[in-house]
Amino acid sequence: MIQGDPLKNIRVVLTQPSHPGNIGAAARAMKTMGLQALYLVNPRHFPHDEADRRAAGALDVLEKAQVCDSLAQALSGCVLAVATSARQRGLRHEVKSAREAAGALLSAAATHPVALVFGNETSGLSNEEASLCQLWAYVPANAGFSSLNLAAAVQIFAYELRMAVSDGVLPQAPECAPATLEQVEQLYRHFEQTMTHTGFLDPSSPNGFLNTVSKWPPK
Amino acid sequence: MIQGDPLKNIRVVLTQPSHPGNIGAAARAMKTMGLQALYLVNPRHFPHDEADRRAAGALDVLEKAQVCDSLAQALSGCVLAVATSARQRGLRHEVKSAREAAGALLSAAATHPVALVFGNETSGLSNEEASLCQLWAYVPANAGFSSLNLAAAVQIFAYELRMAVSDGVLPQAPECAPATLEQVEQLYRHFEQTMTHTGFLDPSSPNGFLNTVSKWPPK
Repeated sequence: MIQGDPLKNIRVVLTQPSHPGNIGAAARAMKTMGLQALYLVNPRHFPHDEADRRAAGALDVLEKAQVCDSLAQALSGCVLAVATSARQRGLRHEVKSAREAAGALLSAAATHPVALVFGNETSGLSNEEASLCQLWAYVPANAGFSSLNLAAAVQIFAYELRMAVSDGVLPQAPECAPATLEQVEQLYRHFEQTMTHTGFLDPSSPNGFLNTVSKWPPK
Repeated sequence: MIQGDPLKNIRVVLTQPSHPGNIGAAARAMKTMGLQALYLVNPRHFPHDEADRRAAGALDVLEKAQVCDSLAQALSGCVLAVATSARQRGLRHEVKSAREAAGALLSAAATHPVALVFGNETSGLSNEEASLCQLWAYVPANAGFSSLNLAAAVQIFAYELRMAVSDGVLPQAPECAPATLEQVEQLYRHFEQTMTHTGFLDPSSPNGFLNTVSKWPPK
């Protein structure tokens, strides 16, 4: 269990970033707002001179960055993962604005790691990656041109997290220990096996049923 | 007098930007939030391929950008200019957070142009440039590393302007027509001449007196 500054418990996860400049700019954006934990899932180019250059005074964030083979690995130990997108998605997750999501992340970060997940610059998050997240969050933007640069999106979310701290959104210790995402996934697999075994679920036509179950935090 | 969408009355002014990539990224940041009016005061390189590349889908903002010889020219016709800085300044202007400044800009933008002014990436705004602005605004940041990239700072201010619109900070038509910055400057020159003539002000030792007079809006 990690205690102290809740911003230290917030991971920024970039999945398959294409442009090393965006990785460096994201590191700089994070550090300006007090975030430190950068996770990179299969970056196309990293380490890279362009990442170092754009990081400016935030080289320490790049040097400590965790490079992972999968999003599941980057989320290991987290109790909440928030997927970011400019688009509404087919998956019926709960959707919050960046400002609302910052409050949810901060509250959960009191005692455990949480993650803010960004997709590839062009293709975003795959449905499989999205299914590992419990909330969706978006930056309110011009409907005619909502294409934020990746690092610019990181900057806005990081800024809202810092503003939430200064606005007094105090992290609340949960009444009971929250489950990690691995534990939640295990529960879903148990559901799936039981429902299949009893004939409730047809595994050849699941209709996305299990994608709609995940909601965090529990009511 | 310009009516309609108040975001269209808000100029983003970059003074002496060094890196053309930042100009393009600022244009993209603006367009994502519905801002269109970019003013460039003595840019080192513009137009430039790197600006076009970083603008992505916001080339129209670059193509309509006004290139000016001086900040005064860029502010012509404005009734409010807000200077942005990560640092506290010696000049005793009113200082607001980005969120507070967004409300002030939006209210004033009901009927007249207003400006949000960003300094050079390294040296910021000169004192002479700062003296043409009525408010200072800053992005709340990590005290140990507050060095936001120029386009990232534009992104946050533009985002707060858009959020202020959606939060219902409705522009208010002023009770009387506000003075333009040129008219205010003429009034100050008149004060200065009169105070010097009457012996109240020693022009060889003005002690910054006239820098402290400017406050907008009038109480």
